Amino acid sequence: MSFQAADPGYEARIRESFARQTVMATLGASLSSVSPGQVEIQLPFRADLCQQHGFFHAGITATIADSAAGYASYSLFPADSSVLTSEFKLHLLAPADGERLRAVGRVLKPGRTLTIAEAEVFALKGGREKLCAKLIGTLVTLQGRSDLPAAG
Amino acid sequence: MSFQAADPGYEARIRESFARQTVMATLGASLSSVSPGQVEIQLPFRADLCQQHGFFHAGITATIADSAAGYASYSLFPADSSVLTSEFKLHLLAPADGERLRAVGRVLKPGRTLTIAEAEVFALKGGREKLCAKLIGTLVTLQGRSDLPAAG
Amino acid sequence: MSFQAADPGYEARIRESFARQTVMATLGASLSSVSPGQVEIQLPFRADLCQQHGFFHAGITATIADSAAGYASYSLFPADSSVLTSEFKLHLLAPADGERLRAVGRVLKPGRTLTIAEAEVFALKGGREKLCAKLIGTLVTLQGRSDLPAAG
Amino acid sequence: MSFQAADPGYEARIRESFARQTVMATLGASLSSVSPGQVEIQLPFRADLCQQHGFFHAGITATIADSAAGYASYSLFPADSSVLTSEFKLHLLAPADGERLRAVGRVLKPGRTLTIAEAEVFALKGGREKLCAKLIGTLVTLQGRSDLPAAG
Repeated sequence: MSFQAADPGYEARIRESFARQTVMATLGASLSSVSPGQVEIQLPFRADLCQQHGFFHAGITATIADSAAGYASYSLFPADSSVLTSEFKLHLLAPADGERLRAVGRVLKPGRTLTIAEAEVFALKGGREKLCAKLIGTLVTLQGRSDLPAAG
Repeated sequence: MSFQAADPGYEARIRESFARQTVMATLGASLSSVSPGQVEIQLPFRADLCQQHGFFHAGITATIADSAAGYASYSLFPADSSVLTSEFKLHLLAPADGERLRAVGRVLKPGRTLTIAEAEVFALKGGREKLCAKLIGTLVTLQGRSDLPAAG
Repeated sequence: MSFQAADPGYEARIRESFARQTVMATLGASLSSVSPGQVEIQLPFRADLCQQHGFFHAGITATIADSAAGYASYSLFPADSSVLTSEFKLHLLAPADGERLRAVGRVLKPGRTLTIAEAEVFALKGGREKLCAKLIGTLVTLQGRSDLPAAG
Repeated sequence: MSFQAADPGYEARIRESFARQTVMATLGASLSSVSPGQVEIQLPFRADLCQQHGFFHAGITATIADSAAGYASYSLFPADSSVLTSEFKLHLLAPADGERLRAVGRVLKPGRTLTIAEAEVFALKGGREKLCAKLIGTLVTLQGRSDLPAAG
């Protein structure tokens, strides 16, 4: 599906908000692509983000998948709004094993208050990408509440 | 519901596996309680694990909730087995805001191959705990496959 | 958790809405209990509502679980409102096998726009009830929109 | 994604199992298409399968979506096996309003024990189809257990 952003400044708005998600810098994740209704986040492998078998922990996969789905949704929101995740479901389809994860968030159904979005997470290993997780969730538009922190 | 562990060494097995989840040390999470069918993980607040509004990122909440539900399940597994998350759903019920998160995982329905478990996550703020998230998911028993890494 | 209904006429409002859910009469389901934040629906076994092994089809279990969670939520809504399900997850924990199903819906977290509710479904067989399914879902309040059909 | 069926008799096996799902005849649902990894079920509108606003009840939408995902999965199972739903999540994206529902189930990730499948449900109204619901769920292969009822 193809979407139009209501707010022409959507990309700057998303990049600014992403920069305030402190967990992204802590994990080493970066925003690799932003377009209306679709956002991509990448995360290079780190041995200190793993579960007991040496793969990315499901919660770390969830972290970038949730933000990818959230910002995909936020790209279609009005300028003066904020975004919250209400719930998501994550299926782990294959070990999150490799040199890098790539989460692609996409809006499935936009709405004034509730947006339904998906994210697919791919693990890059030896030059090949494999779908390793899929998220589907509900994002909430907080109208008239800028995402920017209030002045101090 | 109350459960009996089939493996008397369940607690040591869980603590050893938790210690190999490198993401836990990275986040600063600790295993605060282990009993048959129930496991608790705590995570003190850190400003570098947040989303854009300064609360814990949903993926970090998911990280400790998933491990709490996973190890609650693993407590009922046989000694020579491993645990994998197949899927989970997470509801964000209130901002994950405060001095510390506490995730309590509990088995809802044990099974030979599939175990259904829940986790509730509480945020401690100013001496009061508030339910901020709830997870329900499916854990898989890998029979005859020790969780320990193979000898090098 | 215990809740107070904002609308003293909540029970009549729910019973009237349930009576308009034509699928309930078609299946033979009845509203067995209504209180603030909790609603119970019962469904006697019928051989023509089954899946291939002779148990209730998961979708029929979902039907009464969804309505139980929906009306549990609706009990806390204002008088002049309507209720919609946005999403739910259903775990099938045991075969829905027996003489009767009983779905108990309960509000987990009320909200002005979004309410999170759960439902447990029990199968009665030979005088004993067994938890056979669990639902958790998101219900939406449509403010200022009566649930009653508009006059013709 | 494109799949190959391991059992050349998969279509007859599915049609025979569907015929034993008594709820399908009760609702008036029919199996409109079967191929490896994809199954389609249709359900004409009936005023006696509705929620309070006159649209298909979410549980009825779930019934055909669950069977479509289940049989899509079952198409890839070995001959001597049976299929069970472990859990599913259903998002309601638009009112299930119109002359007919069409549920298209597709396998997302096949597996020896667990298969992850999706279903999209479209509502046909005035000659146009609209996506009204999406399901994603976990299906279990019961190995060595034919789906056929045991001889009496």
